[in-house]
Amino acid sequence: MAKKTDLSQLVKQYCVENGKRFRLRDIDPANSGPFDEDFKDDAERILSEGREQLAELQEKLYAQDRWAVLLIFQAMDAAGKDGTIKHVMSGINPQGCHVTSFKAPSAEELDHDFLWRTNKALPERGRIGIFNRSYYEEVLVVRVHQEFLAGQHLPNKLVSKKIWSERFADINAMERYLARNGIAICKFFLHVSKKEQKKRFLARLDEPAKNWKFSMKDVQERAHWDKYMHAYDDMIRNTASPHAPWYVVPADHKWFSRLVVSQAIIQTLKSLDLAFPKLTTEQRKELEAARIALR
Amino acid sequence: MAKKTDLSQLVKQYCVENGKRFRLRDIDPANSGPFDEDFKDDAERILSEGREQLAELQEKLYAQDRWAVLLIFQAMDAAGKDGTIKHVMSGINPQGCHVTSFKAPSAEELDHDFLWRTNKALPERGRIGIFNRSYYEEVLVVRVHQEFLAGQHLPNKLVSKKIWSERFADINAMERYLARNGIAICKFFLHVSKKEQKKRFLARLDEPAKNWKFSMKDVQERAHWDKYMHAYDDMIRNTASPHAPWYVVPADHKWFSRLVVSQAIIQTLKSLDLAFPKLTTEQRKELEAARIALR
Repeated sequence: MAKKTDLSQLVKQYCVENGKRFRLRDIDPANSGPFDEDFKDDAERILSEGREQLAELQEKLYAQDRWAVLLIFQAMDAAGKDGTIKHVMSGINPQGCHVTSFKAPSAEELDHDFLWRTNKALPERGRIGIFNRSYYEEVLVVRVHQEFLAGQHLPNKLVSKKIWSERFADINAMERYLARNGIAICKFFLHVSKKEQKKRFLARLDEPAKNWKFSMKDVQERAHWDKYMHAYDDMIRNTASPHAPWYVVPADHKWFSRLVVSQAIIQTLKSLDLAFPKLTTEQRKELEAARIALR
Repeated sequence: MAKKTDLSQLVKQYCVENGKRFRLRDIDPANSGPFDEDFKDDAERILSEGREQLAELQEKLYAQDRWAVLLIFQAMDAAGKDGTIKHVMSGINPQGCHVTSFKAPSAEELDHDFLWRTNKALPERGRIGIFNRSYYEEVLVVRVHQEFLAGQHLPNKLVSKKIWSERFADINAMERYLARNGIAICKFFLHVSKKEQKKRFLARLDEPAKNWKFSMKDVQERAHWDKYMHAYDDMIRNTASPHAPWYVVPADHKWFSRLVVSQAIIQTLKSLDLAFPKLTTEQRKELEAARIALR
């Protein structure tokens, strides 16, 4: 079994803090680090231990009430966003963790600036906020389907070729602001291959228990695969930063991608100065007074 | 009576688009441009015409549904924020205009990033949003009373001497983002003198109809007058920009400050390419079909 130190090194491999030299094609979706399928049971056990660690760390985060954590999940359909959130985060007290899924924007949301709906959902101090899809859709699906941009009713003179680089700059500035205000950000791109996606779509058709997850629209999006890969590539290159890194996680093997995500979150939480608040002498006296009064 | 062209020139005098050389002490709160008290009746008539103009412009803004307008009012107590909003904006259809007053933040608001509560209240396309006080309080009252910063529960290592310049940078980046997303921003600082404020506080004590506005706390804040002036000065110097200018409006004469604010808003709306949407040939055919069906 891999030691914990090995795991922390492993996670670093997939962490992009500076996108300048990043190329998505350098990352194989079928990669599983130093492990093969035989490691699957060990991975499941480490993941289970990870859930306990996360629960403990989250309790400190909540008690200290200084930092918030924002986890962002982006991926092609069937890459495993929902499953990863479920398997990595299920040990956590739901009072301190809130998942928001961002689907097609409502009319009210389209009538606002593009960060409005995600800004409202930002986590409070002491909490973990999870965005299942996020404002990054604004440089992904909206970029691939530029007809969606028209639905945002922007004044014409503000829509130019520069719009994607402007959005990258605006997102970077916003994440820098969040970091300065005590929100630790981790961004995950679950990188699945086109072939593996096909396999998973077919499973959704074949297995009755998975039928509900199937959508013809998802299959149609496969026609735009290359455009999406280009959009993801450009997004990671332009928005990776030390205070809001992208983890580009090979996702053809679910056991592996979950392990990497779990360890990345644990390391992020450990890097914060989390501790249960210590009582002041005055507070201790108050407690003593309360104890006497109760007796 | 001053011609309209004169008024637009007048407004420019008080508009700061680049704060580098700005000094608050260069602006006399008792200034009333080229006008003296004899102009008061004319000013009232122009203000009244301005309300009609604003109502018309706002109707186009609403019908076009592309731009939003954000008006920010900051000032010392009794400088006339509430009265200005009332007298300048009362002709407008309230369906297209929303005023949000930001008072002391709630516990829920303090537990979020400092822009969270104002971001939620940003105007939709086609609307005018008015912030009576705003996120600028974060570099004003919080700077003068640094004990309030402790209430924001920021992680200690994020609180340094740089915090005010970081906040200026974050606010600038956010306003640039809003401008890119079709939100036209006008910021007003109603600049009242300490002497005039005293007079107005005394009026609140003397006139029973104004008693409800009096607050001992407001009077106590006078002790920090110089610190506030320094904070305003630094704020304007660091956050004035062409896409989000500060109007520093002399406010010892209410009739004058209202005139300047009214004209500044009118000019901002006129600078947008507002027009009632034109129907496409297809839409015209639809209307024709509807007409026939109704007959």
